[in-house]
Amino acid sequence: MAHPAPPSQRQTESAGLRDLLHVIIDGTDTPAGRLFDMVLLLFIFASVVVVMLDSVAFFHRQYPQLLLALEWFFTLVFTLEYALRVYSAPRRRGYTLSFFGVVDLLAILPSYLSLIVPGAQYLMVVRVIRLLRIFRIFKLVAYLQQAGFLLEALYASRGKIIVFFTTILTLVTVCGSLMYVIEGPEHGFSNIPVSIYWAVVTLTTVGYGDISPKTPLGQGFATFVMIMGYAIIAVPTGIFTAELARSMKKQEQAIVCPVCSKFGHEVNAKFCDRCGTELHV
Amino acid sequence: MAHPAPPSQRQTESAGLRDLLHVIIDGTDTPAGRLFDMVLLLFIFASVVVVMLDSVAFFHRQYPQLLLALEWFFTLVFTLEYALRVYSAPRRRGYTLSFFGVVDLLAILPSYLSLIVPGAQYLMVVRVIRLLRIFRIFKLVAYLQQAGFLLEALYASRGKIIVFFTTILTLVTVCGSLMYVIEGPEHGFSNIPVSIYWAVVTLTTVGYGDISPKTPLGQGFATFVMIMGYAIIAVPTGIFTAELARSMKKQEQAIVCPVCSKFGHEVNAKFCDRCGTELHV
Amino acid sequence: MAHPAPPSQRQTESAGLRDLLHVIIDGTDTPAGRLFDMVLLLFIFASVVVVMLDSVAFFHRQYPQLLLALEWFFTLVFTLEYALRVYSAPRRRGYTLSFFGVVDLLAILPSYLSLIVPGAQYLMVVRVIRLLRIFRIFKLVAYLQQAGFLLEALYASRGKIIVFFTTILTLVTVCGSLMYVIEGPEHGFSNIPVSIYWAVVTLTTVGYGDISPKTPLGQGFATFVMIMGYAIIAVPTGIFTAELARSMKKQEQAIVCPVCSKFGHEVNAKFCDRCGTELHV
Amino acid sequence: MAHPAPPSQRQTESAGLRDLLHVIIDGTDTPAGRLFDMVLLLFIFASVVVVMLDSVAFFHRQYPQLLLALEWFFTLVFTLEYALRVYSAPRRRGYTLSFFGVVDLLAILPSYLSLIVPGAQYLMVVRVIRLLRIFRIFKLVAYLQQAGFLLEALYASRGKIIVFFTTILTLVTVCGSLMYVIEGPEHGFSNIPVSIYWAVVTLTTVGYGDISPKTPLGQGFATFVMIMGYAIIAVPTGIFTAELARSMKKQEQAIVCPVCSKFGHEVNAKFCDRCGTELHV
Repeated sequence: MAHPAPPSQRQTESAGLRDLLHVIIDGTDTPAGRLFDMVLLLFIFASVVVVMLDSVAFFHRQYPQLLLALEWFFTLVFTLEYALRVYSAPRRRGYTLSFFGVVDLLAILPSYLSLIVPGAQYLMVVRVIRLLRIFRIFKLVAYLQQAGFLLEALYASRGKIIVFFTTILTLVTVCGSLMYVIEGPEHGFSNIPVSIYWAVVTLTTVGYGDISPKTPLGQGFATFVMIMGYAIIAVPTGIFTAELARSMKKQEQAIVCPVCSKFGHEVNAKFCDRCGTELHV
Repeated sequence: MAHPAPPSQRQTESAGLRDLLHVIIDGTDTPAGRLFDMVLLLFIFASVVVVMLDSVAFFHRQYPQLLLALEWFFTLVFTLEYALRVYSAPRRRGYTLSFFGVVDLLAILPSYLSLIVPGAQYLMVVRVIRLLRIFRIFKLVAYLQQAGFLLEALYASRGKIIVFFTTILTLVTVCGSLMYVIEGPEHGFSNIPVSIYWAVVTLTTVGYGDISPKTPLGQGFATFVMIMGYAIIAVPTGIFTAELARSMKKQEQAIVCPVCSKFGHEVNAKFCDRCGTELHV
Repeated sequence: MAHPAPPSQRQTESAGLRDLLHVIIDGTDTPAGRLFDMVLLLFIFASVVVVMLDSVAFFHRQYPQLLLALEWFFTLVFTLEYALRVYSAPRRRGYTLSFFGVVDLLAILPSYLSLIVPGAQYLMVVRVIRLLRIFRIFKLVAYLQQAGFLLEALYASRGKIIVFFTTILTLVTVCGSLMYVIEGPEHGFSNIPVSIYWAVVTLTTVGYGDISPKTPLGQGFATFVMIMGYAIIAVPTGIFTAELARSMKKQEQAIVCPVCSKFGHEVNAKFCDRCGTELHV
Repeated sequence: MAHPAPPSQRQTESAGLRDLLHVIIDGTDTPAGRLFDMVLLLFIFASVVVVMLDSVAFFHRQYPQLLLALEWFFTLVFTLEYALRVYSAPRRRGYTLSFFGVVDLLAILPSYLSLIVPGAQYLMVVRVIRLLRIFRIFKLVAYLQQAGFLLEALYASRGKIIVFFTTILTLVTVCGSLMYVIEGPEHGFSNIPVSIYWAVVTLTTVGYGDISPKTPLGQGFATFVMIMGYAIIAVPTGIFTAELARSMKKQEQAIVCPVCSKFGHEVNAKFCDRCGTELHV
């Protein structure tokens, strides 16, 4: 019988395992880490496809056993993954309460709940939020910077966006109410909320056609709402484009040569174009 | 019995009350002013929700008493607010005739009118314009500057916008008339106004589908109108984006350091990036 | 009996009348010229409204006499205007064959033709092109410059626009054909041209819904076409915005101070911002 | 009987013929090369029109012989062209396996296959990809540069585009699944894939109306999805516009005068605006 390892060493071993798991699960620098991400991505997509197929009457009737088996297979895999993530997290509490920690839990909870609570099939749809987990993998790779640009532009224009949305909401409420008076319940505009729904359908140029004006006055007013919606779309686009152009320009100017201090290099520049020094972005 | 205050003092007291009310009602610098705005915002939303629910047959039948009571509660609150606003306004005439003064009056008038004029229920919808009053609260806060950018960009491009809308209106009239000849009344294109309505529905990419071409020639022409509409949307967007980018750039350049006169600071810059002086925007 | 004026003087008088008419009809600098434009604009709109109302069964049945009388009134007014334009044009041949010369003629021709050719009511719709004549009045005023910007941006990007449209047309043809195979005639995709029409309706995000995919594979493919159309719209917008921004910037830089040669003034600048000299744009 | 040419000369002759064919088929500098391109363009369009007409029941029934004859005529012409291309290609293997080599083969293969395989009429649609061949002619002319700009802008923003599409796909999956729970199979949302199809139809503002929400909660959620789709469209547009503007600016700065080294000329500049030297772009 071997000597049990002294406590300190055991702790080190355990810490070594935790570190290794952490590198594999959260890192992308090692081949094992990249393989883990690829397999996880595949499992996420496959499990969402299973949820989808299960909702189709044909597959649900034809292959009930297979779908159930697959579902439990993915649930067990994701449960194991969740356990490993909690175990290897540098700060466990931090992970458990983080956005992705909650998403990871919600990805497995509905399956277990369906065992206890009868008739929880509507809950099963929650499993689709597994898809949100692909953003975790995204988080680790080069796309982060690109998403950063988009988010920065969105954040910088939040003031304008709030003004824009308030205007839109006021507009559809007023236009919907007017249309309710013009067309009335006999042409499908049953009440103000439904008329506001119509106004949104029209202003956003979606145009289902489930409710559409029948009277000449109503069609005239609809014409006005449509042209307004057609033109207003320029506003969010303009806001976002102007902010994105600015945030991209700012980033370009932020690349400064460490030798000659020249700034304003291109985003992907590798060398300073004045003195030739290599740039480390 | 106390001595009545001398006229001048009474005037001062009254002026003091008026000033206090003015600060609370129109200002946002004091806690009372901010609380007033928050409560008002809540009341506006609640009253609009009541108007909406009242239009839904189910609620109108189920809770007629409650809805009526709530409606009169909000009307009385808004009447009191209107009275206080008129009383505390530095220039009463100016307020009464201002845009928001008229909106404030229109927000309470329909309820009183419904007492006198029988069958004025359609008038009740006017109460929805209460929603416009939220922009008054907007006016007072930080979003003003953001709205200012949007309005400046819209104003600067008014010439181009007029040219754009005239072209659009001519286009839909000509396209609608042509479609009236191509498809004719037997396929739903009953007359030229209806055909113009179709042209607007199509060009703005709304596409209800209540009227759609049936003949090959009509579908071919519709294809042309759709692709045109798809491409033309670039015009208002381009106009607005270019103007917004310019107005944002101009504002950036307008931030001048009071010490070293450097201009072109970022919009949210707090210090001059050349000499470190604090900037007061 | 008065002496007839000597030929040279008569020619001068006639030339004087022609010049006067030219100034009134084509100019905008005199009050008479501006009045003429306003009245003409009004007549154009009124005559187009008459054409529209005439197409509505109700008005056509109720007021046949009135509509006919108004139509002939406008036709005679426009005929007189046409005659005066030909008479006062500095180069008559040039005017008659110009774009607006042809439009002016087409605006009156259908009414006369309807006297000779029986059953020419479809021809009557041609009268709607009278609306194009409002651009003539536009041509003379300040909007010209704004339209100039838009046209310059469109012209500068013509190469990109041709590439874009060729790609779009190829795309809808290939997508439409594929959908014809996927869904087939039994789901409304009767033949390739109709399927291409569907592809255009979908790609441009119009979405009538008169033809829509029924099979899972068809809906999957439609999903792909829709997302493509949603993203592709960025292309014309991007092209136009980038060109417009450039053409606006170029024009700004083209305003050069005649005294200190500083360039890059704002479009509406009245004084050089370096030396204060008045700028004559 | 003439002496047969010595091998080396024969090789040269053959090489001369190959070179000549190569210049005519792939070049645009000679009149013969341009004529070849024009005729080929015409044949491609005509053959696609024949494929389309053949799918229309009326023409298929009326002119079966004519359509078949035309089809075989075009097939033989394109077969000859393919043979000549293979023969004249500097590197035959390279051409055969290139994108356009495969397209050229696919353009003729279906007709021959229809002789062997019975009931291969669905395969006939593959002939529509002949249309892709017009891009080959595009490749050779001045539009190349313009397409280059667009492709460069698309390529530069590929990171952002991938982030955008992943977000869109996640969004429609989550929204579609939620709607499946809200509305359920009884209102047309039969299963999750169909609900995702609805989410795409709504988010992209296509709005067929074949499936539309019926319950108040569903309409409320649809309102949210529509406004989101209306605003999100700003993202691809903003990305593409900002990149295109940058790529156009970069190209402008890349035009350097060979004499005075001034850079930053306009794209179509013919002379350096500082020293007047002619620029060869």
